[in-house]
Amino acid sequence: MEHLEGKQTILAALRARQRRFQVILIRHDAHEEKVQEVIDLAAASGVPIRRVDSKELDALAHGASHGGVLAIASEKPRLSPAELLKTIDSRSGAEPLLLLLLEGVDDARNLGFTLRTAEAVGAHAVLIKKHLWDFDAVEVARPSSGAYERMPLVQIENVEPLKQLQRRGVKLYGCIAGAKRTPYEVDLAASCILAIGGEKRGLSGAVRAICDQFISIPTRGDAASSLSLSHAGAIVLAEAMRQRRAAEKTRMEDGG
Amino acid sequence: MEHLEGKQTILAALRARQRRFQVILIRHDAHEEKVQEVIDLAAASGVPIRRVDSKELDALAHGASHGGVLAIASEKPRLSPAELLKTIDSRSGAEPLLLLLLEGVDDARNLGFTLRTAEAVGAHAVLIKKHLWDFDAVEVARPSSGAYERMPLVQIENVEPLKQLQRRGVKLYGCIAGAKRTPYEVDLAASCILAIGGEKRGLSGAVRAICDQFISIPTRGDAASSLSLSHAGAIVLAEAMRQRRAAEKTRMEDGG
Repeated sequence: MEHLEGKQTILAALRARQRRFQVILIRHDAHEEKVQEVIDLAAASGVPIRRVDSKELDALAHGASHGGVLAIASEKPRLSPAELLKTIDSRSGAEPLLLLLLEGVDDARNLGFTLRTAEAVGAHAVLIKKHLWDFDAVEVARPSSGAYERMPLVQIENVEPLKQLQRRGVKLYGCIAGAKRTPYEVDLAASCILAIGGEKRGLSGAVRAICDQFISIPTRGDAASSLSLSHAGAIVLAEAMRQRRAAEKTRMEDGG
Repeated sequence: MEHLEGKQTILAALRARQRRFQVILIRHDAHEEKVQEVIDLAAASGVPIRRVDSKELDALAHGASHGGVLAIASEKPRLSPAELLKTIDSRSGAEPLLLLLLEGVDDARNLGFTLRTAEAVGAHAVLIKKHLWDFDAVEVARPSSGAYERMPLVQIENVEPLKQLQRRGVKLYGCIAGAKRTPYEVDLAASCILAIGGEKRGLSGAVRAICDQFISIPTRGDAASSLSLSHAGAIVLAEAMRQRRAAEKTRMEDGG
């Protein structure tokens, strides 16, 4: 069981319907207008509500930003690679895939922000190596603005699922420092996986070994200039979205 | 006087030469190889070093990431709008200006990340309203990866400096939710200010009233999808860089 803290996270999780809720705890003196949406949605979803005093709530909460609402629910489920492939194979006439592979994320907050950006630009799923799943879910959920609840998360143990995706025509782009190609020079409008490494170690050798191409965001200034994982991710993801919008526009103009 | 914590921040500040250093404190048992660069640069800059025990250092430090090195120095100076304009007017044959205006930054860490991204994509200065300068500098400096020390920061009290920039041909683009234009449809290769508001309130009425155009990053998915200030900033800044690189390439091809 995991704790979900704060109205927005809990509403997102109730709507995403991926978790089983045991109970939602609401502080006695919580503002009625503020928690009414949670109460209504919980009722509609058959989740019991229990009123508690602030002492009990604070004892359970990780942070101070719960605003008087805390839920106890099953963990957010992770897709297996087989489930991801099954979902992909069952799509028909679908838009090109946009997948994000994160390696070496060393900060729960950055992971949360990255999930939020990935959702905003239309990524279909985020793949994360199994041994990196050592995050406090509350810390990931808060900055994700609900994206943690909605975005399909795939747990992979090795590069085999990436190879299976490549055999389906999905290109694997490794975002590394010092590559000659920029994201602006490759075709990110076609189905692809964007692989982004941690700030300290970058991409693993196993992933590098199978990348179709490497790309670097062309940063400027002295050597100290660099981008954080989540901001580099945002820039590359947004570039994929830009190319997809441009390709879509061309298709529509050609068709019309 | 302000505290600077950690080797990287202190090295960046010493190199940027914008602060006056009073003293650099180094813990007795700090790894010699790790602090040698600080010791050498401090000596070259005439900054005294004092060895302290870990108790004294911890008492002064805000966080736990100082790694045994802490400096006491004057505040990072902020440019006045007049100084910014003077610098701009004295540039000759210079590349188009890229300025970032931040309104309503509610998190020191996000400000630090945004400064880092702004530097990486080649922004010339970051403008911030005076009443928003209420940050713990240590919290801004750490995620900025030294950019806080190097990036010119301009403190503005009202929109007058923005108007003066506009009179010099610099366009003011307001990044807001729901604008019809995307960053991909405006000319960000010409001199411009990118104005980004806080996540809660967006841009102020005073800034909105004088924007030349409004732009929105075209995010997808349900209404809950959105971007954080620092990630929206990264995407728009990177788009300006992309357009500038493309324009530069065209210029070079035309010239050659």
